[in-house]
Amino acid sequence: MNEVAGRRSRSGGGASRRAERTAISFETARYIERNIPNFEILNEEALQIIEANAETVLEEIGVNFVENPDALRRWREAGADVKGERVHIPRGLARKLVSTAPKTFTQHARNPERNVEIGGRNLVLAPVYGPPFVRDMEGGRRYATLEDFQNFVKLGYMSRWLHHSGGTVCEPTDIPVNKRHLDMLLAHMTLSDKPFMGSVTEPSRAADSVAMSDILFGGLNDRTVMTSLININSPMTFDGIMMGALEVYAANNQASIVSPFIVGGAMAPVTVAGTLTQVLAEILAGVSYSQLVRPGSPVIAGAFVTSIDMNSGAPTFGTPEAAHITYGAGQLVRRLGLPYRSGGSFCGSKLPDAQAAYETSNSLNMALLAGVNFMLHACGWLEGGLVSSYEKFVMDADQLGTLHHLAQGVAMDVNGQAMDAIREVGPGGHYLGCAHTQANFKSAFWRSDLLDYKPFETWAEEGSRDTQTLANERVRKQLADYQAPEMDPGTREALEDFVATRKAGMPDAFI
Amino acid sequence: MNEVAGRRSRSGGGASRRAERTAISFETARYIERNIPNFEILNEEALQIIEANAETVLEEIGVNFVENPDALRRWREAGADVKGERVHIPRGLARKLVSTAPKTFTQHARNPERNVEIGGRNLVLAPVYGPPFVRDMEGGRRYATLEDFQNFVKLGYMSRWLHHSGGTVCEPTDIPVNKRHLDMLLAHMTLSDKPFMGSVTEPSRAADSVAMSDILFGGLNDRTVMTSLININSPMTFDGIMMGALEVYAANNQASIVSPFIVGGAMAPVTVAGTLTQVLAEILAGVSYSQLVRPGSPVIAGAFVTSIDMNSGAPTFGTPEAAHITYGAGQLVRRLGLPYRSGGSFCGSKLPDAQAAYETSNSLNMALLAGVNFMLHACGWLEGGLVSSYEKFVMDADQLGTLHHLAQGVAMDVNGQAMDAIREVGPGGHYLGCAHTQANFKSAFWRSDLLDYKPFETWAEEGSRDTQTLANERVRKQLADYQAPEMDPGTREALEDFVATRKAGMPDAFI
Repeated sequence: MNEVAGRRSRSGGGASRRAERTAISFETARYIERNIPNFEILNEEALQIIEANAETVLEEIGVNFVENPDALRRWREAGADVKGERVHIPRGLARKLVSTAPKTFTQHARNPERNVEIGGRNLVLAPVYGPPFVRDMEGGRRYATLEDFQNFVKLGYMSRWLHHSGGTVCEPTDIPVNKRHLDMLLAHMTLSDKPFMGSVTEPSRAADSVAMSDILFGGLNDRTVMTSLININSPMTFDGIMMGALEVYAANNQASIVSPFIVGGAMAPVTVAGTLTQVLAEILAGVSYSQLVRPGSPVIAGAFVTSIDMNSGAPTFGTPEAAHITYGAGQLVRRLGLPYRSGGSFCGSKLPDAQAAYETSNSLNMALLAGVNFMLHACGWLEGGLVSSYEKFVMDADQLGTLHHLAQGVAMDVNGQAMDAIREVGPGGHYLGCAHTQANFKSAFWRSDLLDYKPFETWAEEGSRDTQTLANERVRKQLADYQAPEMDPGTREALEDFVATRKAGMPDAFI
Repeated sequence: MNEVAGRRSRSGGGASRRAERTAISFETARYIERNIPNFEILNEEALQIIEANAETVLEEIGVNFVENPDALRRWREAGADVKGERVHIPRGLARKLVSTAPKTFTQHARNPERNVEIGGRNLVLAPVYGPPFVRDMEGGRRYATLEDFQNFVKLGYMSRWLHHSGGTVCEPTDIPVNKRHLDMLLAHMTLSDKPFMGSVTEPSRAADSVAMSDILFGGLNDRTVMTSLININSPMTFDGIMMGALEVYAANNQASIVSPFIVGGAMAPVTVAGTLTQVLAEILAGVSYSQLVRPGSPVIAGAFVTSIDMNSGAPTFGTPEAAHITYGAGQLVRRLGLPYRSGGSFCGSKLPDAQAAYETSNSLNMALLAGVNFMLHACGWLEGGLVSSYEKFVMDADQLGTLHHLAQGVAMDVNGQAMDAIREVGPGGHYLGCAHTQANFKSAFWRSDLLDYKPFETWAEEGSRDTQTLANERVRKQLADYQAPEMDPGTREALEDFVATRKAGMPDAFI
């Protein structure tokens, strides 16, 4: 039941054997390499219409680069028509600028076995990002603390199907705003050896992220070791703080996810094609800008899109319209030759109940088939992103195993065809004991490490536990079993010194 | 919240307006007509390998038609090589026989507005079939009764997204086995006006189903008014009772779903390609047989497939392997030119909790993209099909709305492109008040009638209800609000007389 159990020779069962087979170490599966097609909802004509409309948006309407004279200068020099803070990008220019961005790139982890390859047919899974609250069965809903943050990093490290430690797995609200990025980075760097994200809330915090990474990796030497989330203020506004962080990261060859954050009908048109047009225009402008800062710097084109409940104005998740946009945006981003970020364990529910799971599964399945390359929020998201849920974190993380197996596609070799088995068993027989089943049963079927497969009577005897209860037990067990990955003591000390020095150098600020 | 509220002018809100737009009447949406592609997991080479292997199975290994001399005679006359009960079907013969089956057919309902068109790009949704138990929040898990059966028929009738009343929505275990089909049919015929399924547990019960339908429709005149579930005893065994029922239905131009029931690794090989080979061989043999009985009689090619937990032997649901098989079988069945049955609200969970919803959403999404034409078990399935759940019935039925909207695809007309809206709003603006949003918001986004979209504080004030609790309230309200569809009193009396006479003509039997 526990990914680290294998190390202690305690499990000995199917779980550890599966881990051996599918993981680059016994703990964590390799990032997903798809062997299935993408689902393409738009035909060629529709794609061309949206692409032409996006160019019209960039040229006629333009985009705003706010409080950022350097950006305006860069755009002017690149050939854009700049009026005030409005940048009109001539037809074709953005597409040309985007072409210098790499199709795929490696994000290095301090444990090289955890390196991830972002782009192509790959899918890298990272946990929930940003919630100010946490929830668990014992404590209910409450403001997140640094201890919660550290717990979620530990759970992410121990999740077999999670390739990435993420970034703001929750907001440590007990730490001053201007210092919490230091504690967050330190947690990712010391409590996990998976790749992580940098701070984006201030350009100086992005610089701190680069400086700490330089310590962790003993010199970056242009290696990409962070993938950070640069939201666009939709519609079509690029603010100085986010772009300032992007500038720091691009200059240091660190990856940015350039990602509109869209609640449909509020930050974008209420129709799917209209939203896709705006998303494409925003991606073109934002990714172009990263290439103006440093041609060839790695970037991911993102689309965070939800629909809206027009009765209440609440964002809604796992909806058909979000699926349409995610599928369509995947096609548009692939045509740009960029890695694609979208999807996640999205839900609006306040509890990790059936609503949460319906909405999450709708979102996860769609993201896999949409060709997503980097999935932020892949586990732990609750209540529209306001809450990081302990139980849902391990529930979703378990479901991520289904994506790994779905992506493998159908084996068509002689063993897969199984004609000998069909001959052996024949009409009226059964396959449980046949040679082919014996040879293949260990790897044939994905099996949840969390969900209940027991007969009703056994399940009732064991207390009729629902999924949340099972997940709560798993969370407690994982946190109790947690052991930090090995780390050079000198490196740890240097990181702790950096954090202490930076903290001492500025007064606390809570805004 | 209630589909029939519109009739009483009580809702007046978004729900009734949406119902007007999407439904052929205010109550029930028209069956789904897909405007999106199917997901095709197998390439041409893989499809040809499986098709060739299936012919090898039919010719070399053959299939058993058990306790059915008439079937063996029919096969012999058609050119098969029959040895004992084993039928070896020469390469190509089954494919030729299958070609007389219709690509699509109309299943008539007593309310012609509820007729469904089965096949092509359509998807018809029918409720759970077969569970001996029911569960609800008040009563827990218990043996199903006729009252439960009637309740589920009522809930199905009132479900906006359900096109079909189904068949054995639960087993009325308080009624003798040899008589319960009469009460079940009477319930479907009188409590709903949606299309339904006939009895298959005995050829004589199939004949009763035809006789009662003849009364209901005032003479069948070769109209197809039932779609009934004929399971194959995998591997490759066609038993006399099921085939006897099929013979009655085919002879009367009633539709049969010819469907292997497969727990992978038990009734079929443990690999996907091997299972698809066997499924295709079984479909070819079973559908061929329906055409031997009556060429041109309507039939649906089915695949009920689950994987197995190799640790415990329990069937598992919503798994990647089941998805692979469902996608692949869809491709194979389309190449045969037959309507395709698969998918459903499958789950292994004992409760309508997160496990149930994860597994169900995995299954429902897969079935839509796999091109399923007839989805039995589309709502209400719990605990591996042992239980019909009241709460899950309305939870799943609500989620079926997402499939309707997903299937609509992306509107690419001028309104869909929304360029005027993007121009009107511009960088930094917002879309909530713009003309395009005002004109489109009613239809832009699917909205659940059940799930909670309220802010945390409101939700907490209202009692922090989880999905199961909301669903329980909805079940109670729907059953309280239920009104039977109008029916000619003479027809009802004739049906009741038929049932009474048949019941009086045989002693009770409980096996």
